[in-house]
Amino acid sequence: MQEILSAHKSRFERDFFLLLKQSSLKSAPAGLREATLYSLSGRNKRLRPVLALESARIAGRKDEDALAIAAAVECLHTYSLVHDDLPAMDNDDMRRGQPSTHKKFGDATAILVGDLLQSLSFELLAQANLPLSAVRYFARAVGAQGMVSGQYLDMQAAGASTYRLHRLKTGRLIEAALILPTMGRSAVPGMAKFRWARSLGVLFQITDDLLDATASSAELGKTAGKDAQQHKKTIISLLGLPGARVKAEQIAVKLESDASKAFPESQLLRNLPRELLSRSS
Amino acid sequence: MQEILSAHKSRFERDFFLLLKQSSLKSAPAGLREATLYSLSGRNKRLRPVLALESARIAGRKDEDALAIAAAVECLHTYSLVHDDLPAMDNDDMRRGQPSTHKKFGDATAILVGDLLQSLSFELLAQANLPLSAVRYFARAVGAQGMVSGQYLDMQAAGASTYRLHRLKTGRLIEAALILPTMGRSAVPGMAKFRWARSLGVLFQITDDLLDATASSAELGKTAGKDAQQHKKTIISLLGLPGARVKAEQIAVKLESDASKAFPESQLLRNLPRELLSRSS
Repeated sequence: MQEILSAHKSRFERDFFLLLKQSSLKSAPAGLREATLYSLSGRNKRLRPVLALESARIAGRKDEDALAIAAAVECLHTYSLVHDDLPAMDNDDMRRGQPSTHKKFGDATAILVGDLLQSLSFELLAQANLPLSAVRYFARAVGAQGMVSGQYLDMQAAGASTYRLHRLKTGRLIEAALILPTMGRSAVPGMAKFRWARSLGVLFQITDDLLDATASSAELGKTAGKDAQQHKKTIISLLGLPGARVKAEQIAVKLESDASKAFPESQLLRNLPRELLSRSS
Repeated sequence: MQEILSAHKSRFERDFFLLLKQSSLKSAPAGLREATLYSLSGRNKRLRPVLALESARIAGRKDEDALAIAAAVECLHTYSLVHDDLPAMDNDDMRRGQPSTHKKFGDATAILVGDLLQSLSFELLAQANLPLSAVRYFARAVGAQGMVSGQYLDMQAAGASTYRLHRLKTGRLIEAALILPTMGRSAVPGMAKFRWARSLGVLFQITDDLLDATASSAELGKTAGKDAQQHKKTIISLLGLPGARVKAEQIAVKLESDASKAFPESQLLRNLPRELLSRSS
């Protein structure tokens, strides 16, 4: 499984950076382009684009459309990391095994890199032969109805439930990576696909929290133990470490058995929950 | 002319805030929603959405599509103001006659308001019955090939030419406001429209620089004299005050005579260059 994921990731990275060379990024001033490419580099699982590529394969999309969708998702995810790492936000100095973008290029450039990556994400999405409704769906999932609202809740000391926060902050983009490639192929993506995709987002967040609590910064490529240090609401602060492990195991088992309903054609997706689980234990 | 612009602006503002109530903004956490609506309020000419509405009228678009395009342009513009005002960027405390968003709600919220407004802009654009190519065009114009790159050049002490900087930072969005509504109506928007729209962007920037140099903060609703104080490259630092006035006059005269070729059906657009000029003198 690890080898399959790693092969997918390598192929994506090669094609992704070629695609970027043909995008509007080539007209950006050299310094801004360099900082943007830096933020997109570094040690990275590329989980979201690999999900998008696999969903596109099942939906029978052309390679170039699949790549454009995967690239859009990766640009969007990276913008969120660059902005979340800013001193005014989570203030994180390390990301993807290297100094975070604002540490390397300054806060102003990091803000602009994030802004540029969001525009670039919609540019790439709009060249993937999707219906207009897919652009609207994505804009809502990463904006007011999803990711940005989740990050806002994460910055507040009290209030929202941990599950709601994570569903918005992490879950909606992982959902979009799986759902976008199916749009326009059938009338409406099946609810089974949506439910599965959202549940995978929750599992991903719990295993990420487990890693933050148990792995070293060197293993993570970012500062470990930040959640507890910043008193973040996580599944672990809610359930404790053993409780969170049990919860993750339960979700993974259900995802495994439901995969045959949601994405019957994909061995990769069926094996992924188990793989996420084993990484975090 | 002032009364016509003011009537357009009032109608836009009424419809715009109604449209926002039906957008994904209604699902955002209350605090984030409040800060976003705050950033969209205040004293404001609404020049860009008025341009979009007028171009849409000429192109024969339905009212609801025209409004969605105008709203998308206004959300995009406002996100750029909120991020540009941040302490890490231009560090401006006043905007649209009120404390800027980060002064009122803090830096983290202001970053997220800008991020949300960019997503919201694409959400609204995607409901305007435009072709996918319009989404791509807009993403490029406000991203790496336009606005964000212009803002990056503006942050650099030296380098780019003043004209290039302004064409990217201000010109491309004003261009997009006029061009977007024409897309999908004819094969390709005429070059005359493009040239006129870009030239209007340059005129707008010069008159804005003249106002910054000559008007008071109370008149502007934002801190006056910031350009000289921050040693910004402007047309005035390049040509001097009288030189900039002559330049603006020349561009306005040409725009006036070319309006009949680019947008023959619009008295508003023909009169606009003269109006911009008279505001700044």
